[in-house]
Amino acid sequence: MAPAASAFTRSRPVRSRHLLAVCIGGLLGAPAVLADEGMWTLDNLPKAALQSQYGFKPDQAWIDHAMQASVRLAGGCSGSFVSPDGLVLTNAHCVVGCVQGLSSAERDLQNDGFVARAREEELQCPAEELNVLREITDVSGRLASAAAGKQGQAYVDARNAEKSRIESECVGDDEAKTRCDVVELYNGGQQHLYRYHRYSDVRLVFSPEYSVGFFGGDPDNFNFPRYNLDAALLRAYEDGKPAQVDHHFTIKPEGAEAGELVMVTGHPGRTQRQLTVAQLETVRDVSLINTLLWLAERRAMLGQYGRSSEEAARQAQSDLTFTDNSYKVVRGQLQALLDPQVFAGKRAEEARLREGVDAAPWNEVEAAQVTARQLAVPYMLLEQGRGFDSRLFGIARTLVRGADERAKPNESRLPEYQEAGQGRLQQTLLSKAPVYPEYEIAKLTWSLTKFRELLGTDDPLVKAVLGTQSPAQVATALVEGSNLADVAERERLWNGGAAAIEASDDPFIRLARIVDAPARAVRKRQESEVSSIESRAATQIAKVRFDKLGTTVYPDATFTLRLSYGDVAGWDENGKPIEPFTTMGGVFARNTGAEPYALPKRWLDAQGRIAQDTPFNFVSTNDIIGGNSGSPVINRDAEVVGLAFDGNIHSLGGNFWYDPRLNRTVSVHSAAIIESLKSVYGADALVEELLQK
Amino acid sequence: MAPAASAFTRSRPVRSRHLLAVCIGGLLGAPAVLADEGMWTLDNLPKAALQSQYGFKPDQAWIDHAMQASVRLAGGCSGSFVSPDGLVLTNAHCVVGCVQGLSSAERDLQNDGFVARAREEELQCPAEELNVLREITDVSGRLASAAAGKQGQAYVDARNAEKSRIESECVGDDEAKTRCDVVELYNGGQQHLYRYHRYSDVRLVFSPEYSVGFFGGDPDNFNFPRYNLDAALLRAYEDGKPAQVDHHFTIKPEGAEAGELVMVTGHPGRTQRQLTVAQLETVRDVSLINTLLWLAERRAMLGQYGRSSEEAARQAQSDLTFTDNSYKVVRGQLQALLDPQVFAGKRAEEARLREGVDAAPWNEVEAAQVTARQLAVPYMLLEQGRGFDSRLFGIARTLVRGADERAKPNESRLPEYQEAGQGRLQQTLLSKAPVYPEYEIAKLTWSLTKFRELLGTDDPLVKAVLGTQSPAQVATALVEGSNLADVAERERLWNGGAAAIEASDDPFIRLARIVDAPARAVRKRQESEVSSIESRAATQIAKVRFDKLGTTVYPDATFTLRLSYGDVAGWDENGKPIEPFTTMGGVFARNTGAEPYALPKRWLDAQGRIAQDTPFNFVSTNDIIGGNSGSPVINRDAEVVGLAFDGNIHSLGGNFWYDPRLNRTVSVHSAAIIESLKSVYGADALVEELLQK
Repeated sequence: MAPAASAFTRSRPVRSRHLLAVCIGGLLGAPAVLADEGMWTLDNLPKAALQSQYGFKPDQAWIDHAMQASVRLAGGCSGSFVSPDGLVLTNAHCVVGCVQGLSSAERDLQNDGFVARAREEELQCPAEELNVLREITDVSGRLASAAAGKQGQAYVDARNAEKSRIESECVGDDEAKTRCDVVELYNGGQQHLYRYHRYSDVRLVFSPEYSVGFFGGDPDNFNFPRYNLDAALLRAYEDGKPAQVDHHFTIKPEGAEAGELVMVTGHPGRTQRQLTVAQLETVRDVSLINTLLWLAERRAMLGQYGRSSEEAARQAQSDLTFTDNSYKVVRGQLQALLDPQVFAGKRAEEARLREGVDAAPWNEVEAAQVTARQLAVPYMLLEQGRGFDSRLFGIARTLVRGADERAKPNESRLPEYQEAGQGRLQQTLLSKAPVYPEYEIAKLTWSLTKFRELLGTDDPLVKAVLGTQSPAQVATALVEGSNLADVAERERLWNGGAAAIEASDDPFIRLARIVDAPARAVRKRQESEVSSIESRAATQIAKVRFDKLGTTVYPDATFTLRLSYGDVAGWDENGKPIEPFTTMGGVFARNTGAEPYALPKRWLDAQGRIAQDTPFNFVSTNDIIGGNSGSPVINRDAEVVGLAFDGNIHSLGGNFWYDPRLNRTVSVHSAAIIESLKSVYGADALVEELLQK
Repeated sequence: MAPAASAFTRSRPVRSRHLLAVCIGGLLGAPAVLADEGMWTLDNLPKAALQSQYGFKPDQAWIDHAMQASVRLAGGCSGSFVSPDGLVLTNAHCVVGCVQGLSSAERDLQNDGFVARAREEELQCPAEELNVLREITDVSGRLASAAAGKQGQAYVDARNAEKSRIESECVGDDEAKTRCDVVELYNGGQQHLYRYHRYSDVRLVFSPEYSVGFFGGDPDNFNFPRYNLDAALLRAYEDGKPAQVDHHFTIKPEGAEAGELVMVTGHPGRTQRQLTVAQLETVRDVSLINTLLWLAERRAMLGQYGRSSEEAARQAQSDLTFTDNSYKVVRGQLQALLDPQVFAGKRAEEARLREGVDAAPWNEVEAAQVTARQLAVPYMLLEQGRGFDSRLFGIARTLVRGADERAKPNESRLPEYQEAGQGRLQQTLLSKAPVYPEYEIAKLTWSLTKFRELLGTDDPLVKAVLGTQSPAQVATALVEGSNLADVAERERLWNGGAAAIEASDDPFIRLARIVDAPARAVRKRQESEVSSIESRAATQIAKVRFDKLGTTVYPDATFTLRLSYGDVAGWDENGKPIEPFTTMGGVFARNTGAEPYALPKRWLDAQGRIAQDTPFNFVSTNDIIGGNSGSPVINRDAEVVGLAFDGNIHSLGGNFWYDPRLNRTVSVHSAAIIESLKSVYGADALVEELLQK
């Protein structure tokens, strides 16, 4: 279907990317960043570029306001405050966990959508945490001193202990409302302390039907033209009341226009643009392939499970969406690294960086790759727990490790079990979201099969886990014999600590105990023989980069707040121009009535009330990545003109480099958000709250 | 579990591979073949190497005998005559199609095994064809003359027409008993006419329970130590009576010994050792990745389908085995091509070959890769039909294309529809093997989803196939609305030709017609813009190779008869020596009672009767690949000492190169075959027939 042209695409000329396209051969891998490239920390915005390219010069008040109106969803998304009463705008796909946790076979919020008509109707999410950045402090010096002269595991331990001290000092006794993270920036080149205000009482205000929030489903995911109302509203509560916030963005209902400067403030999860060539080869040949194959099987397994019944489909829906999405991401990343041009660019860039400087850091990184390659699969299966794919195993792992770790002094613990994170750890552990036994058995059976396949039948841990049984038998015995679906039992074991764990004969607890020592061993080797070496080398390489390039570079993404700038513009797809906007009328034209192109009844009924030429989704040149989902797209007046929810297919290579010709952010237009809330959902009170000045 | 050491491993020293291991760095990619490397055509055996390395000098009578006692299973396996009454020894996994075709929910030959106690009990396979090579003729000259001066599609057409004429002349009017194939050797460097005697009445004599024929299942597949009775017996019939054959191998019940010269005569399907570096890059970056991801999803989908019930498991079993197996093969191939050393070796080899000669052929191949990369996915989905994964689509495709093609002069048809192949085409089309609707729907739903995902929702063919429905709706409508499960209906449509197809409103026929034009278009582009260019260049490169290396090289595998030589020997796995033999006692030690390590009852009952130290499986250095399954392993006296059924995990890189340090063939020991038939199955008449002199 041709993109539905809107008034916007005609009334204003789209800034041409052709000049950039012509230059790209020479630019690829050049030391300076490319136009519109960059996920900039808010303490180092590219002011010169913003000024010269867009005539925009944000002052400190603008920056502080943007920082404190931006919200992080701790589970892996972004959002923003859009009213003084703590209303948070984010993506529908970012609240799937909450929505699914609140759903059951009887109450299907996921497929039916949800609108709170009044504040009393707002529903508390089983496990959700919002973070708002308040302060950034450079703590590189403290960490360098703490680890000075140390190597290997001692280096890791010393840095972890110092990080833990810094975070604990920062949190103080305000654990409920404060979160502090020491963040690695510039691939280990700097460490900054990020202090957040933490909201742990988060309630669902609005979420559309899955079929319109994710209209087009997996086939349209990462594609454009696009027609998604991937928008949801949460509200932060404090002390049982809507949180009163000092900073929020206002929504501009006219939304983004073609060619205008737009900025995205959000939390890109991870990029790997500063890896060395040796690391990239490991990523390409080992990490991505293994992850991709795991995801490919998982999506097919979940898909087939879901086709067995409507209820099964509902149970698997959020895992399937996540898996499909990850699959496409990793597939796109691999495709980028298999492109000989991308690798050639990386090699050239590295050669320039290494010119005239000590080669030792690069050589050390390269030497560590032998171990990195060996550990990749065991790490994935044991430490990441992919060999035991089930919620109950995750719970058991937290209980078993929690008991061990909490018995240690805070700074000696694994980072995720330190005091600073206890609140959110418990929140996840004690979430009331239902556990579905059949579904747990299906995932576990499949993943135990992978576990045996990848480690081999004769592996001692495989023998210990499976004994004389098949994966299906083991999975069934585990799920049917466990009491961990019961939140009270989890609470008992958590509070009971090591003694309670020791005394437990829950089969999942037993499994988690069997797996724990080998998993820790792999993690320890990974940290002491790979990541500590890579991190030390990265610090040295980062210094070289600073010396040669100064602050013209931005750090790789680390799920911390960043600003990316760009303009609303389409692109050229194999000679065919892609217009930057779609309209709400377009979604009705694309509706077939069959999943995933089946609009919900509420939308079909509302068709006559919707202004068909309302812009629906649009693309812009902002440089974003996974984690940015839910980010506000703001204009120079800090008004929300859109809501980022995706990138186009070319954005996936963005993990490794930014391609200004093709890489595009995909957003919901703010006009569509207002129009939907008003004309489809009749959510007048919410519209009023959103539009108040 | 440690490999069960047998008397054999102790009584004779294993020939050390260490010398080779030391040399490998230098040898990799060297022009001369490596020790024991090679899949040699029977008209060009490496007599000098056999003489110098093993003191063996086969005469023409030995070669003729080996040739005519070796059997090809047209579906993709190998075998051998082992009695004058047409008894054929092959692998259990090679007769899965026959066994499944003879099975139903009521009669489960696959899991229960089958032994014909008398010839009257032998069961005719629904679709099986055996070929025995009678004559090899060089027809390179005829093809060169026919295509002289032609390019692109004209070149393809001229060669196809001439091939068709040659094959038709060779078959004459003896289509029922003669098969003639013009075979491309040396990657298009030579064309030989292979004339086979054809047996189309093939009956099942013996097949073990799946659980012992494939003991260890997918986890042990391509691994060693191994404990499989992957052996089956078929019998060729002619005129309703057991075929009387002039050549057969006799079985040596003492079987193979460590260090002894063993030869494998069989039909390796395909290797790609002579591809150019540019072609290998396409294979690595496009073909293997896309195939692997397709297989990964398919195996998970089939696995989950099979877990829904025992009957579902039975329906999916042979597809799942095939898919698991292919997955491992492709995974291993990709791993080999991701090994920088392998690629470096290939580059070095190519550089030597190109030294001092015209670069044009390599450059032309490289230029064609742009199109090759573009066409890979559409070709897979449309022409290979993976977008419509179901038996009914395959049937519909054959009917639709068959009607179109049979209306053309023989030499203008697509090769697979020419007169010479009509017999086997009809045999497959009219096979009485049952069609399972639910299973067809499951595979089709999944594959239609992939079809849409990979081509995109806006692709015109995707729109034409799906219309306003979901993949599940389309799949259900197709399967439930089709009559093609009825063999009589297929026969009617086949015999009715174009008129019957035109008149049919069977939904699968309609689908096959919609897909046909785009599929043919992709195939035509692939042939005229890629493979014809590659084939012409290969002819030129092959000439360079002959000029530089003479007949010291062997052609890539093409599913034609080859001999590979080697010796019975283990290998060194990361410093741990792997002994070359396992024993029958070992399978009882490895039995856990849970799939895939659950011996069938008949075996458990027979444990006391089995000589526990009987060698079960063994490894040897023979250079084989998929298609060799079922090949006899013979000694210098042309006695069967084993039955090849697999390679170790390192053999998978054998698609691209032979690694003498690690690449091993895995075989069933002939002692185990006799012992099982006698002590487990009480098949005394068969044992007597096998051991007669």
